[in-house]
Amino acid sequence: MDSPRRAGNEFDFIDWVRSQTPAGSAIVGPGDDCAVIPLGNDLGLLKVDSCLDGSHFQFTDHDAPGFATPEQVGYKVMARTISDIAAMGGTPRYATVATALPQGAGNDLREGLVRGLLAAAAPFNVELVGGDTKSWSSERLAISVSLFGVMEGRTPVLRSGAQAGDALFVTGQLGGSLHSGRHLHPTPRIAEGQWLAAQGASSMIDLSDGLSGDLWQLCKASAVAAALHADALPVNSDSTLEGALHDGEDFELLFNVPGASAEAIARAWPFQTRLTRIGTMLAGKPEITLIERGQRTPLAIKGYEHRL
Amino acid sequence: MDSPRRAGNEFDFIDWVRSQTPAGSAIVGPGDDCAVIPLGNDLGLLKVDSCLDGSHFQFTDHDAPGFATPEQVGYKVMARTISDIAAMGGTPRYATVATALPQGAGNDLREGLVRGLLAAAAPFNVELVGGDTKSWSSERLAISVSLFGVMEGRTPVLRSGAQAGDALFVTGQLGGSLHSGRHLHPTPRIAEGQWLAAQGASSMIDLSDGLSGDLWQLCKASAVAAALHADALPVNSDSTLEGALHDGEDFELLFNVPGASAEAIARAWPFQTRLTRIGTMLAGKPEITLIERGQRTPLAIKGYEHRL
Repeated sequence: MDSPRRAGNEFDFIDWVRSQTPAGSAIVGPGDDCAVIPLGNDLGLLKVDSCLDGSHFQFTDHDAPGFATPEQVGYKVMARTISDIAAMGGTPRYATVATALPQGAGNDLREGLVRGLLAAAAPFNVELVGGDTKSWSSERLAISVSLFGVMEGRTPVLRSGAQAGDALFVTGQLGGSLHSGRHLHPTPRIAEGQWLAAQGASSMIDLSDGLSGDLWQLCKASAVAAALHADALPVNSDSTLEGALHDGEDFELLFNVPGASAEAIARAWPFQTRLTRIGTMLAGKPEITLIERGQRTPLAIKGYEHRL
Repeated sequence: MDSPRRAGNEFDFIDWVRSQTPAGSAIVGPGDDCAVIPLGNDLGLLKVDSCLDGSHFQFTDHDAPGFATPEQVGYKVMARTISDIAAMGGTPRYATVATALPQGAGNDLREGLVRGLLAAAAPFNVELVGGDTKSWSSERLAISVSLFGVMEGRTPVLRSGAQAGDALFVTGQLGGSLHSGRHLHPTPRIAEGQWLAAQGASSMIDLSDGLSGDLWQLCKASAVAAALHADALPVNSDSTLEGALHDGEDFELLFNVPGASAEAIARAWPFQTRLTRIGTMLAGKPEITLIERGQRTPLAIKGYEHRL
């Protein structure tokens, strides 16, 4: 049934899916943080994201990275999906959840998941309106959250809008999310994303696969290059520079604004969330140059591979 | 982590989830075929449904029930989710898909799934606008489809609208879906559901868990009883009466219309799809009486348990 090839790159696969999909009424299809659909006088957003036992969390070894309780798993999968709505500048509204419960799972597991889902949804008034929960003949839990959101008149910020000369910013601090346990309780930057959409941010993505991998997606989608200032990166105190460049699951916003607006945006920023300018977009084919102590080196892409 | 209890009844769990969920703006939350949300001048529908390796299909034994190719799995999970939109009288529009690919899966598997998804979506102009595909450390495939639909001005037909005196109808023929392989290529009754919503059907559900189990849900939601005429049931030629009563995955529509409209509805029915009146709703607590050769017996509920 399967070819001897192993499944290739996720993004090559998305390109293939797009090639198979007939043109339709959707404004943005597969490949951005969310799909964008027409909704009468507004635009809607659709997104699905998953957490898989053994990849995004594990239940068995309390002392190993990724150990999580059911509540933490529910919280994580809801928060990371809300983060994708933030990366468009949208407002999340309604969620549905699909859960494959491991063999022999009891009520404590499925109720814990729901408590975590609701805890992550509550601050954003996201309503859990449906779901599908089934036990199955696997020892592993799979859970996915689907979100419906709205733009409320704002223009969605895509990955493809960056231009040469744009200033590159990031919210919060980066690196070490998995080992510190921060990956279990990300804070989706909904208000920040909405404000940036209203201010005319040119492109945006949320950091799930790591700065190098996600910036690379942004460069490819926008057909531009990027220069990244290593000394400017906001590195978590328990992380290395390497961690800030390549670790996944920070769930911060990486975005561009036109170079001429960069100072004004930074001055007007109304949030406590840290805001840091970390680079500049450049004309040329997609690539990332790291500038460190006056030296330029091409940055290798080491995206998070969803493995603990 | 888990209590020694095994996970209890799916519907008790939905009741518990509803008790944990704060009141919101959704018009219908968990527990019906779809959630109903406000959308400016229209109503929207949200639904997620899953197919799990070993429960809804299996890849390994060609000769055993439930064997399916990747294309068939993709087709099935899309079609069964579209069927839930049909059961509200809605129009499906946009789909997202979450897939946990088994260890070592190749491109043929994930591309086959997408081909099946698109084949089931095409007749209904459903657009595949996003997805999340990840390999994981399990040998089992889990796939779920989330749908967004719209009512286009029609009133959604809920499970809770049946009244004593209503006439009970079913589309198509029932029973033997798993052994015949029909469960792999259901035909969602979208046009039929829309017509019934426009004609004022009082309640509707799609048959996924089997006639007895799904009629029981309809009785409970509407707080009425039902009398089912065994001799009237449209039984597939390769099924027994027992199969038509209890087998799952027929994906036909089970619905009520006011008793006074029953003849007019049956005469006006504009579809080739078979339409059969199979019973009557009765005042009283939720229960099902089977009428067979002039004898009345209480019908035991033997819902499909999602196990091959």
